[in-house]
Amino acid sequence: MQAGLRFGRIPITNVQPVLEGGKFPAKAVRGGDVRVSAVVFREGHDLLGATAVLFAPDGSEAQRARLKPGPKGTDSWEGVLTPSHEGNWSFVIEGWSDLYATWSHNAQVKINADVDVDVMLAEGALLLGEAAKSAKDTAPGAAKVFKQAARALADPSLNVNDRLAAGTGAEVRAAVVRFPLRDLVTATGKFPLLVERDAAGRGAWYEFFPRSEGAMRHPETGQWTSGNFRTAVHRLPAVATMGFDVVYLPPIHPIGTLNRKGPNNSLLAGPSDPGSPWAIGSAAGGHDAIHPELGTFADFDAFVAAAQELNLEVALDLALQCAPDHPWATAHPEWFTTRVDGTIAYAENPPKKYQDIYPLNFDNDPEGLSAEILRIVRLWIDHGVRIFRVDNPHTKPVWFWEWLIGTINAERPDIVFLAEAFTRPAMMAALGRAGFQQSYSYFTWRNTKEELEEYLVHVSRESAGYFRPNFFVNTPDILTEYLQYGGPAAFKIRAILAAMGSPLWGMYAGYELYEHVARPGSEENIDNEKYEFKDRNFAAAEAQGNSLAPFVTLLNTIRRAHPALLDLQNLSLHESSDPATLVFSKHKLIAATAEEPARKDTIIVVINVDPHSMREGEVTLDLDALELDGLSPDGTFLVDELITGATWNWGKKNYFRLDAHLEPAHILHIRR
Amino acid sequence: MQAGLRFGRIPITNVQPVLEGGKFPAKAVRGGDVRVSAVVFREGHDLLGATAVLFAPDGSEAQRARLKPGPKGTDSWEGVLTPSHEGNWSFVIEGWSDLYATWSHNAQVKINADVDVDVMLAEGALLLGEAAKSAKDTAPGAAKVFKQAARALADPSLNVNDRLAAGTGAEVRAAVVRFPLRDLVTATGKFPLLVERDAAGRGAWYEFFPRSEGAMRHPETGQWTSGNFRTAVHRLPAVATMGFDVVYLPPIHPIGTLNRKGPNNSLLAGPSDPGSPWAIGSAAGGHDAIHPELGTFADFDAFVAAAQELNLEVALDLALQCAPDHPWATAHPEWFTTRVDGTIAYAENPPKKYQDIYPLNFDNDPEGLSAEILRIVRLWIDHGVRIFRVDNPHTKPVWFWEWLIGTINAERPDIVFLAEAFTRPAMMAALGRAGFQQSYSYFTWRNTKEELEEYLVHVSRESAGYFRPNFFVNTPDILTEYLQYGGPAAFKIRAILAAMGSPLWGMYAGYELYEHVARPGSEENIDNEKYEFKDRNFAAAEAQGNSLAPFVTLLNTIRRAHPALLDLQNLSLHESSDPATLVFSKHKLIAATAEEPARKDTIIVVINVDPHSMREGEVTLDLDALELDGLSPDGTFLVDELITGATWNWGKKNYFRLDAHLEPAHILHIRR
Repeated sequence: MQAGLRFGRIPITNVQPVLEGGKFPAKAVRGGDVRVSAVVFREGHDLLGATAVLFAPDGSEAQRARLKPGPKGTDSWEGVLTPSHEGNWSFVIEGWSDLYATWSHNAQVKINADVDVDVMLAEGALLLGEAAKSAKDTAPGAAKVFKQAARALADPSLNVNDRLAAGTGAEVRAAVVRFPLRDLVTATGKFPLLVERDAAGRGAWYEFFPRSEGAMRHPETGQWTSGNFRTAVHRLPAVATMGFDVVYLPPIHPIGTLNRKGPNNSLLAGPSDPGSPWAIGSAAGGHDAIHPELGTFADFDAFVAAAQELNLEVALDLALQCAPDHPWATAHPEWFTTRVDGTIAYAENPPKKYQDIYPLNFDNDPEGLSAEILRIVRLWIDHGVRIFRVDNPHTKPVWFWEWLIGTINAERPDIVFLAEAFTRPAMMAALGRAGFQQSYSYFTWRNTKEELEEYLVHVSRESAGYFRPNFFVNTPDILTEYLQYGGPAAFKIRAILAAMGSPLWGMYAGYELYEHVARPGSEENIDNEKYEFKDRNFAAAEAQGNSLAPFVTLLNTIRRAHPALLDLQNLSLHESSDPATLVFSKHKLIAATAEEPARKDTIIVVINVDPHSMREGEVTLDLDALELDGLSPDGTFLVDELITGATWNWGKKNYFRLDAHLEPAHILHIRR
Repeated sequence: MQAGLRFGRIPITNVQPVLEGGKFPAKAVRGGDVRVSAVVFREGHDLLGATAVLFAPDGSEAQRARLKPGPKGTDSWEGVLTPSHEGNWSFVIEGWSDLYATWSHNAQVKINADVDVDVMLAEGALLLGEAAKSAKDTAPGAAKVFKQAARALADPSLNVNDRLAAGTGAEVRAAVVRFPLRDLVTATGKFPLLVERDAAGRGAWYEFFPRSEGAMRHPETGQWTSGNFRTAVHRLPAVATMGFDVVYLPPIHPIGTLNRKGPNNSLLAGPSDPGSPWAIGSAAGGHDAIHPELGTFADFDAFVAAAQELNLEVALDLALQCAPDHPWATAHPEWFTTRVDGTIAYAENPPKKYQDIYPLNFDNDPEGLSAEILRIVRLWIDHGVRIFRVDNPHTKPVWFWEWLIGTINAERPDIVFLAEAFTRPAMMAALGRAGFQQSYSYFTWRNTKEELEEYLVHVSRESAGYFRPNFFVNTPDILTEYLQYGGPAAFKIRAILAAMGSPLWGMYAGYELYEHVARPGSEENIDNEKYEFKDRNFAAAEAQGNSLAPFVTLLNTIRRAHPALLDLQNLSLHESSDPATLVFSKHKLIAATAEEPARKDTIIVVINVDPHSMREGEVTLDLDALELDGLSPDGTFLVDELITGATWNWGKKNYFRLDAHLEPAHILHIRR
């Protein structure tokens, strides 16, 4: 009779994470926690339970997680699944009538009111007697508990209270956790869950221009000699020492000479100005070539190999746009927009013109252009690149990304694409669904406690199924007012927020030197490295105590020691009495392995986000979010402060005092 | 290349109304406005358009509605579709590159900045020249405008400003509304839209107990003689005169005698107490029988026929529960829950017991029980019943309703089911998706301005695709504190809110007599008609001016004269300076017919919801919501006040003064 019906016996709706009914898979990272939730309810008063079941790519059942009820009246249930390795996983939600909870509730209420005493005891004996039979083979321990309870419930020689207690005591309650008494079990269909490798969702990124590393200015002529891969390789050990995982290079291709931009985005470059690496293509080649001054493919391969030796991955820029002298402009004018006067249209945002750039047009020859870009991506993969930082993906059709990333990931699921998109929310979300493993985010412009609280909840809960934010603290294009005017404290605060708040964070070279002077009227560094060489002396700054590098090293060291910090979906907010002090925690239950027992890893960050002030007040912790089992509401526990090394007794309420000019934050680890 | 991709050329997401990806159809009523919306966006800076296309049940295109952009930054678009008749309709959203808007924007910005002047004029001439050719056959008027504009754009003898003006003037802008210049047109799949008859979503309901109408108390013995269908028929003309559309009767079946409830819900009835009609079934029969005191099937048929003569539909109660002496209790014990002691379980909410009621159990014999209920529903349909008010549907499995309503509506799409569910939101929503055409709602408990504003927006916008609320002002089970203590003003206010705020509203007999005394400690009338006969003298009350009936008549008359009031999704809120004065409007564009030109119908309700006060202040109207084309921000327009007959000049800001004890509301109609 139920054939063809859309409602099952127990209705289950609003399952999360599910994107457009399962049309796109939700995203996860190997070993990362996935918050699942659903609305599960039923007719009448009987109690119910809900379970999430995780299936591995081979279809085998990998995990069952009992869900906990959400806020009263919402009928929502939630829990955590943790897929162990990469691949196309899936999950279902089961709803079921909870026979034991229903009987136990009714029996206690009715027997205490002296209603139906005999019937309730007899029903309990029957229920637990049958449960003992069912559990005999798979859960013999629980079966034994059920059997004893059933006997006591049915024993007329005992008094009523003892019989009831035998059926509702702690032992039986523990046994039904192991062996729930489920009836009317109803399951949803399978929802897809794409599990990707660590680098898709975890990592600390460091961006630098290889041409600057080893660049030298002639002391007399003032002429620069460009750095190259052979000189830039010497920067890698310092980057590795700071604890970064990824080195991201701006485009390494030949730079256009026609309409080349000069220093500070001036319209015309001088003869020795190097030009913006994002104006790609010249007589020396296009996206499949290397800038002659940077070296050869052999030099690049050696650079990638040197990085690998240091456990650094190289991320390449994929900037799909051309300088006017890019080879495509003559060989394939159909890949651009030709104007009515026969010229190729340059980039513009009327009336602003960007005459050093020709945007691509995907509508004249989508097959030809797509195939060429695929060839280029495969070329760089063949040279060891496994991560692409994609420039301005929101200026290309979304279908193209779905196709490109889908095609590449079908042959190489380990290839990661980062969307450099700063645009409206609809496009940001679409790029995530289209396949981008991660994205630049609005983090850069979220500075106050309120802004950060809202944004951290959004990215860790609401959008986590399709959008993995990479919290860059700066980029060559972004030097926010907060950094321009906040002093060194601002640089420290933003680094802590990024490194502790997100499993993905990034920094562009110069941040550790507190470079904070902007070109007037802009949100970019003055004398921007996009158009010039930079010769930075990192070692000297560090020797003089003028570098954030040691603190960045500490942050990345803390990240590597604490798996909770490398998950996205495990963030909880806590209260503080101060309007500029933000408090959040990251908590993860790490399953037992053959070598180690299960353990909990929990970090609490208390941070004063006003770089000009000293703040004090009281933190009120949400103890449930910290899973301090058995802690009484006025109990205390030990926390290790990971910046200073102090150890304190903390509880639900705790005093703090944070001077932004000294240490703006506490990073606390709960000792278990 | 795009085969198999999920993103089209122009991404379109978040289409509304779509239930679970189209798994359930969204609901509409014949001729009722359906708000549609979507997020439509594209890469880059070019401008785009969006269109909703409506398809009739036969698959033919019935309407195209150009969507308007929503709030800035959201990429949302919205508009209205209006299906003309019942059936299984569908709609799609189209997104498209707007060639004219893109050119027009760029041309004006660039030419004003003296950039690319010749190119922009030439591109405009080319675009409009080609548009003239495309439009020639289908829109010859627009084609002529395009051709003239193209010529002027290309005419070097004119000055630049005149050439630009020729391409961007009002005539061309009007022509592209008729014939948009669309490129890269991308359509979603079809989303289902179930269009039902008027009674599914529109109507004024009146509930009364037929046994009370014509019931007589013997002056000496105090014994009651029950009213019946032949006496109750005399109440129908008054109900029709008040302007109601539906007469809803509590269950008309034999009432159980075992454990029958007495007056005021007392545990045991006296020998002459009639019992609750919801305790169904006795030796005289069950759900397929008529209470002997109410009459025969012939009497019932005559009652239905008399109602039809007065354009009243009869709604029957479908209360799927049994008194202990219902025939099913002996013939089909498997349709109930049998306890371990062999007795049938009565209804309970432990420790509360309802021993006059046996709830049904759908899990022992779902096929047999379902078939029997289907037989019963068909029986009453055969006796002219086309509307069922379903008692407590949330205590039966949701799948059963999906099956029952689906089965009945497949053979009789005109049958309407009202869910009498007052429970948590998840179940309320599920019953709507399962097929219930309408539902009781939380309206009864929304009394303050803030509560009402939130609820009106929720039901008219957020949930309208699956949930049609019937705003009952009272029921035999519900006499809110607001009515108990608010005096006659409260009764008037709630009637206005219900009748003007929702296309479906309802009233239970006695409301017009201001019956407001509750049984102590309950939210029900004292001496509740559920357990007793009531002999009300409506005519005498009206003659003495102690009846709300004339005002109810006025409300229903206004409803019938104003189609805007009979739509659900067309409500907008407006501001008032007073915290107890609510302002909302209902607006509808009524399409032209063979007889009449198109016209706009707009009602504005300004209502003081505090029954104890006089309120004054300023209303600020959202003029966009009223579609007063061409009205300047400080312009005025005529409104007719439909309660008093006054006519005023109103504008954006208007003074009001509302004394709840005199007239708590203005009901204004905009004169066009």
